[in-house]
Amino acid sequence: MTYTLATIAGQIDAELRGEPDCEISALATLETADAGQISFLANRRYLGQLRQTRAAAVILAAEHATECPVNALIMENPYLGYALTAQLLYPQPAFEAGIHASASVATDASVHSDALIAAHVSIGSGASIGADCYIGPGCIIGAGVKVGTGSRLLANVTLMSDVNVGARVIIHPGAVIGADGFGLAERSDGSWLKIPQVGSVIIGDDVEIGANTTIDRGALDDTVICRGVKIDNQVQIGHNVFIDEYTAVAGCTGIAGSVHIGKRCRIGGGCGISGHLEIVDDVMLTAMSGVNNSIKTAGVYSSPLSVTDNRTWRRNVARFHRLDETLRSLRDDIRALDEKK
Amino acid sequence: MTYTLATIAGQIDAELRGEPDCEISALATLETADAGQISFLANRRYLGQLRQTRAAAVILAAEHATECPVNALIMENPYLGYALTAQLLYPQPAFEAGIHASASVATDASVHSDALIAAHVSIGSGASIGADCYIGPGCIIGAGVKVGTGSRLLANVTLMSDVNVGARVIIHPGAVIGADGFGLAERSDGSWLKIPQVGSVIIGDDVEIGANTTIDRGALDDTVICRGVKIDNQVQIGHNVFIDEYTAVAGCTGIAGSVHIGKRCRIGGGCGISGHLEIVDDVMLTAMSGVNNSIKTAGVYSSPLSVTDNRTWRRNVARFHRLDETLRSLRDDIRALDEKK
Amino acid sequence: MTYTLATIAGQIDAELRGEPDCEISALATLETADAGQISFLANRRYLGQLRQTRAAAVILAAEHATECPVNALIMENPYLGYALTAQLLYPQPAFEAGIHASASVATDASVHSDALIAAHVSIGSGASIGADCYIGPGCIIGAGVKVGTGSRLLANVTLMSDVNVGARVIIHPGAVIGADGFGLAERSDGSWLKIPQVGSVIIGDDVEIGANTTIDRGALDDTVICRGVKIDNQVQIGHNVFIDEYTAVAGCTGIAGSVHIGKRCRIGGGCGISGHLEIVDDVMLTAMSGVNNSIKTAGVYSSPLSVTDNRTWRRNVARFHRLDETLRSLRDDIRALDEKK
Repeated sequence: MTYTLATIAGQIDAELRGEPDCEISALATLETADAGQISFLANRRYLGQLRQTRAAAVILAAEHATECPVNALIMENPYLGYALTAQLLYPQPAFEAGIHASASVATDASVHSDALIAAHVSIGSGASIGADCYIGPGCIIGAGVKVGTGSRLLANVTLMSDVNVGARVIIHPGAVIGADGFGLAERSDGSWLKIPQVGSVIIGDDVEIGANTTIDRGALDDTVICRGVKIDNQVQIGHNVFIDEYTAVAGCTGIAGSVHIGKRCRIGGGCGISGHLEIVDDVMLTAMSGVNNSIKTAGVYSSPLSVTDNRTWRRNVARFHRLDETLRSLRDDIRALDEKK
Repeated sequence: MTYTLATIAGQIDAELRGEPDCEISALATLETADAGQISFLANRRYLGQLRQTRAAAVILAAEHATECPVNALIMENPYLGYALTAQLLYPQPAFEAGIHASASVATDASVHSDALIAAHVSIGSGASIGADCYIGPGCIIGAGVKVGTGSRLLANVTLMSDVNVGARVIIHPGAVIGADGFGLAERSDGSWLKIPQVGSVIIGDDVEIGANTTIDRGALDDTVICRGVKIDNQVQIGHNVFIDEYTAVAGCTGIAGSVHIGKRCRIGGGCGISGHLEIVDDVMLTAMSGVNNSIKTAGVYSSPLSVTDNRTWRRNVARFHRLDETLRSLRDDIRALDEKK
Repeated sequence: MTYTLATIAGQIDAELRGEPDCEISALATLETADAGQISFLANRRYLGQLRQTRAAAVILAAEHATECPVNALIMENPYLGYALTAQLLYPQPAFEAGIHASASVATDASVHSDALIAAHVSIGSGASIGADCYIGPGCIIGAGVKVGTGSRLLANVTLMSDVNVGARVIIHPGAVIGADGFGLAERSDGSWLKIPQVGSVIIGDDVEIGANTTIDRGALDDTVICRGVKIDNQVQIGHNVFIDEYTAVAGCTGIAGSVHIGKRCRIGGGCGISGHLEIVDDVMLTAMSGVNNSIKTAGVYSSPLSVTDNRTWRRNVARFHRLDETLRSLRDDIRALDEKK
């Protein structure tokens, strides 16, 4: 799509400084942008690139406008401006509704006439696919599943029976929603008895779920992902987890069963959260943090050790493994010295 | 299914206190259970909910029976009672055997007449699928694979060539069994030469494998998962790993090549185990533990740091990175003081 | 395949000590190898097994040749010799080119007549599949994708639109290449706006990508995996990551957006690398390391704590969480003692 700068400014609610009729047809980084392309500055780190940019225009904050050598769209949150402009310039491609000849659709399933069902899709008994849904190639829709209006399952997504997906949900390839939770009871001989997982999964509106992410169905009650939650790739969410509105979970994080996470949390990549814990609203976990206790106060929390050279690290780890003992002994020695005097 | 309390008590070997003819048709939590529903108490934490429950009956230990306001089924291990009752009330749904018209089955593959082969399944040359197997939509069964009686591959499961799956095995969607191990030899110029992975994977009876879990084939010998092992979602198991009977591995754990894990171990979520190590029987690793050395004695082992607020954490990490140096210097200072006196 | 020892010695460039006409048809470990089988010694740990081996021949270094009780193939890098011999004895099985009747191929896609397109594959508009490619069952090839000569997508691989795959690339089942990166802008009410991801993914020649690994497409520019890079299972690679030639990444590692990794790095399993960092050439990260800062010097880096028994660990972690405070107080006490004197 091509727009004039004036149109973009109006759409993203920015102040235009420069040529209103300049035509924009693409987004690019400050470094690579050229004629007809718009860029953005959301991080001071790239101020040097701003000064040398050959972009047709740049979206940025008022404080950096004087350093912009080209047309400027000024707004408080230039990163949001970038996102809005990207949605304008790169709209979701339209698709032609219909059911591919190779798809296997149960006779009692309901598929809206405005939905697209791609090649090799399976849709189980009693499932229902809403208007404007895009069900990409190889997706598997279990019996009784509901998918709301305008949702997109891109490819090879598996929704097990009775999973309930809201409207405008995006699910990336390889995600598995509604597989059994890891519910096992130990017999006296040490073997395990499987516990049927009879809850389901409820996915709210406007949720996005990343590639190869897994969200287990509940044991008795449902697993619940609320409206506007964003989940990255390869995240594992155990049975009966509840994640409240607008929380974002970065890749490779594992959330054990029955965890309750509040609204607007930001869970970094590679985190682990143990079962049955509660994390309140507005908590941020930095990447690779491990949570063994509930977090009852909003704030930023962390736990990982960052890398050092292997030799120093080995010494420090050896020290760590004797830390309690060493600190006790140091304390004793100081006390002894004090008493001697 | 609906059963009387007396029938359930008999089936799960519990002592019935209350109405033998009370009809039960569902399981629910203490908090939500209502007429016709049975619940259980397996954790003292929920004693408060027990006292207020409106369940028709509760499975619990003798010590809590007096606090139960409704019918009680008393047994030593109420969690096992819950599992048994769930299996009674929610039996595996039956399926109609047959091969879906869209499935692609090699002419020399053998599929038992009691097995179900769902839509878009591929079965390779010489593969064999046993009686009562359920091969869900989109599964890929490589050449020479054997799947034992009563096993269920739920959807989109990939078994690469010659993988051998026992009886009553459950494999959840997206799992990949028998992909090549990560075997590489370095050439003198720093590039890598792939080592053909010519072993396979042997999965014992009654194993359960979670969604998007990967188990690599052996380099020369086989990768072996023994009888009754339970593996959660997104677990990675490298080539030539051996996991002995009844061990359970929670989600997001990675086990590098040639690791040997004993019987009845419990490996927590998000753990990492380095290559070629041995872990003896009855070891428990708490979540997010890293194992760099063999574990030769049964017991509970741990390593992760738990989260604290980001500011305290940053100070402590900075201290950690100078730990060896700092402790040496403190020790020196104490010695010097001691000598001065 | 069967070869004489003389032929193998010639092919792998080793010195033959023993019977040139001895016939070899398989590889096996020192412990299990028997007549007709060749083994190798690449690790001193197995010297005991060497002395007792019944292999027909062993590939080993000159320094261990005198301890070899059977025919020997002597070379500097016996592990490379093992890899070369394995490639000789276990060549890639040939396949018969053609498009399976159940595959769905867009009319304007181009499939080389020497390529194999297996059952239930989908190939999108404008895609192109090169000569000698093997596209296994259930693979999904998006619109505009290019796959170079001799590449193999084993099964259930998803390549989203416009992904560009080089020659001789191997992609294992369940891998997802080119899903959207995790690009979100926060609105003032805490909700998230999706940022269209309009870059793609470029995979160089001779790359190998493991099962269920995910590589996201770039936000504006492309994500780039250079020639000869080897990636294990369940690795997550964020948008706009750049990985230079011959780097190897072990399983379960997560690499956040815009990370730049140099040549010949070895990233251990379960590592995490935060966004926008740079790691120079020839860096080795040991397993489970967390990287929060750029690494500017080649070398070996580490961060995880290794397991100890749970009780000691709990004490040490408690100490860690007060480390800064404790060390300050010890230092103060020593200073006070010193001043008292």
